[in-house]
Amino acid sequence: MAYVEDSEFERDTTYIPDRITRDGTTPDGRPGWPVEPGRYRLIVARACPWANRSIIVRRLLGLEDVLPMGIAGPEHDERSWTFTEDPGGRDPVLGIERLQEAYLARDPHYDRGVTVPAVVEIASGKVVTNDFPQITLDLSTEWREYHRPGAPDLYPADRADEIDEVMRWIYTEVNNGVYRCGFAGTQDAYEKAYDRLFTALDRLTERLRDQRYLVGDTITEADIRLFTTLARFDAVYHGHFKCNRSKLAEMPVLWAYARDLFTTPGFGDTTDFDHIKRHYYRVHTDINPTQIVPAGPDLSGWLEPHGREALGGRPFGDGTPPGPPPADEEVPAEHRARALAA
Amino acid sequence: MAYVEDSEFERDTTYIPDRITRDGTTPDGRPGWPVEPGRYRLIVARACPWANRSIIVRRLLGLEDVLPMGIAGPEHDERSWTFTEDPGGRDPVLGIERLQEAYLARDPHYDRGVTVPAVVEIASGKVVTNDFPQITLDLSTEWREYHRPGAPDLYPADRADEIDEVMRWIYTEVNNGVYRCGFAGTQDAYEKAYDRLFTALDRLTERLRDQRYLVGDTITEADIRLFTTLARFDAVYHGHFKCNRSKLAEMPVLWAYARDLFTTPGFGDTTDFDHIKRHYYRVHTDINPTQIVPAGPDLSGWLEPHGREALGGRPFGDGTPPGPPPADEEVPAEHRARALAA
Repeated sequence: MAYVEDSEFERDTTYIPDRITRDGTTPDGRPGWPVEPGRYRLIVARACPWANRSIIVRRLLGLEDVLPMGIAGPEHDERSWTFTEDPGGRDPVLGIERLQEAYLARDPHYDRGVTVPAVVEIASGKVVTNDFPQITLDLSTEWREYHRPGAPDLYPADRADEIDEVMRWIYTEVNNGVYRCGFAGTQDAYEKAYDRLFTALDRLTERLRDQRYLVGDTITEADIRLFTTLARFDAVYHGHFKCNRSKLAEMPVLWAYARDLFTTPGFGDTTDFDHIKRHYYRVHTDINPTQIVPAGPDLSGWLEPHGREALGGRPFGDGTPPGPPPADEEVPAEHRARALAA
Repeated sequence: MAYVEDSEFERDTTYIPDRITRDGTTPDGRPGWPVEPGRYRLIVARACPWANRSIIVRRLLGLEDVLPMGIAGPEHDERSWTFTEDPGGRDPVLGIERLQEAYLARDPHYDRGVTVPAVVEIASGKVVTNDFPQITLDLSTEWREYHRPGAPDLYPADRADEIDEVMRWIYTEVNNGVYRCGFAGTQDAYEKAYDRLFTALDRLTERLRDQRYLVGDTITEADIRLFTTLARFDAVYHGHFKCNRSKLAEMPVLWAYARDLFTTPGFGDTTDFDHIKRHYYRVHTDINPTQIVPAGPDLSGWLEPHGREALGGRPFGDGTPPGPPPADEEVPAEHRARALAA
């Protein structure tokens, strides 16, 4: 994602709103592209919570082979994510150094945010879509033919309305709520954002006190969207965005909920605390001009028993957990070790 | 205090090193001034940990009447603390708007830090001394004739060597250690400072695990010097200075030790979390350019039972606790309420 600043933070939500659907037709009249194994490349950054969603969903559904993934580095310049972690600083499939190139290939006059996740058509090198909330939903519903055996249903049709409602609220109050604190332009806007955020977190504590997951008794897309914000809370949002009434680790229900997901295949193993911290603290020079990245927090608590199994629930419903991630998509061991031993 | 920046932070320690002693003579050859009730005014800022020491010591010893106190506001300009909280923005006794005036009265060419605590001779308006470590020791030893009945001995002669040694170590590793993190000019200097700080805090945890106070079984000057840093830890140093391996509230022994002192007369009742937060977050624009002051953390935990009485100890030794602070020196109730209800 990219950001704009204002006295009350507003997210830049103008996107390339195309969709990739089973047969390329879309009921909502947007430009459509057909699902096709190997035709597209999902570009992410591990640092970004909006991209992290798509990494988790793709992995839970077993779409690694049909939708390959390129990973941008944690830092970027003013206009673009870059492929600094790849050999020669280029995405090995698209051959580009800066994600902006794929946006400009799509539209030479593109001047909106160069955001991740972005799905790029490999042959043309053009961005197909960067509509982050739609990308993951379409992975669940439109790519179903290519899901692995045992893939969970993260967006079950009979609960879609409730999931949508919960996700809308989580987006405005939590996912975006932390940014509203961090990018507030005035003390007053910040304090309103802080109150609004912690009111929401308190409400989530009540919802999750006796219920293992947000909707129904299985993991859904709603949990994934909440998780990626919670995973960044103590590492970044608490200090960097001044979301500091308390740490996640001091909110027992949410902390246990987050650890439960973290230790579920697909969640903790796609979380790169090293990239997360480097991204926020080095890119946002307007709020951290020294660009010094905190050595803390001690994140070893993520691996402590969470006790949430006692609430019941069936994490993957009638499905099964995914196997380990492909070797070339593992979060580097030294990133995990460094963060967990701070 | 005032600060200089460098890749490794070094404190500006050039002061006006005069002393105020019983008869104005000094064994160490520094310029001496005689103790005299009502002759001097102690200028402090509640925000400043070095000044907070002198506020606590003066109050524990009952020197309020013989050494009146002026309180600078929490923010200051580039060169001077200012009396923004006083009517008309002037210290009501010295009549000055900026503490720098008292430094310039002493030395028209004074160009070092305009720091608190500072002791000013009221009649001449000149700073007598700003030697913060010596000021409190002299309050304990040289002003003894004017201590209240039941004043504790904060610097007992038979333990002075041990207290000195502990205080030297606390100064370099903890009091100054948090600044070394916050003002590090490079990632490498910061990480070294972080490791050094938390190594020291771990060592303090061991020392205080089974021992109520740092030296002997009573409160000494060493405890006061450690307290003023711990009191600011979660409110400021954790986020603002990136001292974030864990919060004080996550270090059980030190947290209980700090709460024990906080609820002892003279400590919590001289701590102004509102001034503390406003000072650091608004003055250090080089590390917090937005000048937004965090609404958190929730500080209500400071008042929870600490259980340290079980370790024994006699807080005031053969002495007694001080009575309540004079009405005109109370931390404003709204500051305490705002911080404790964040």
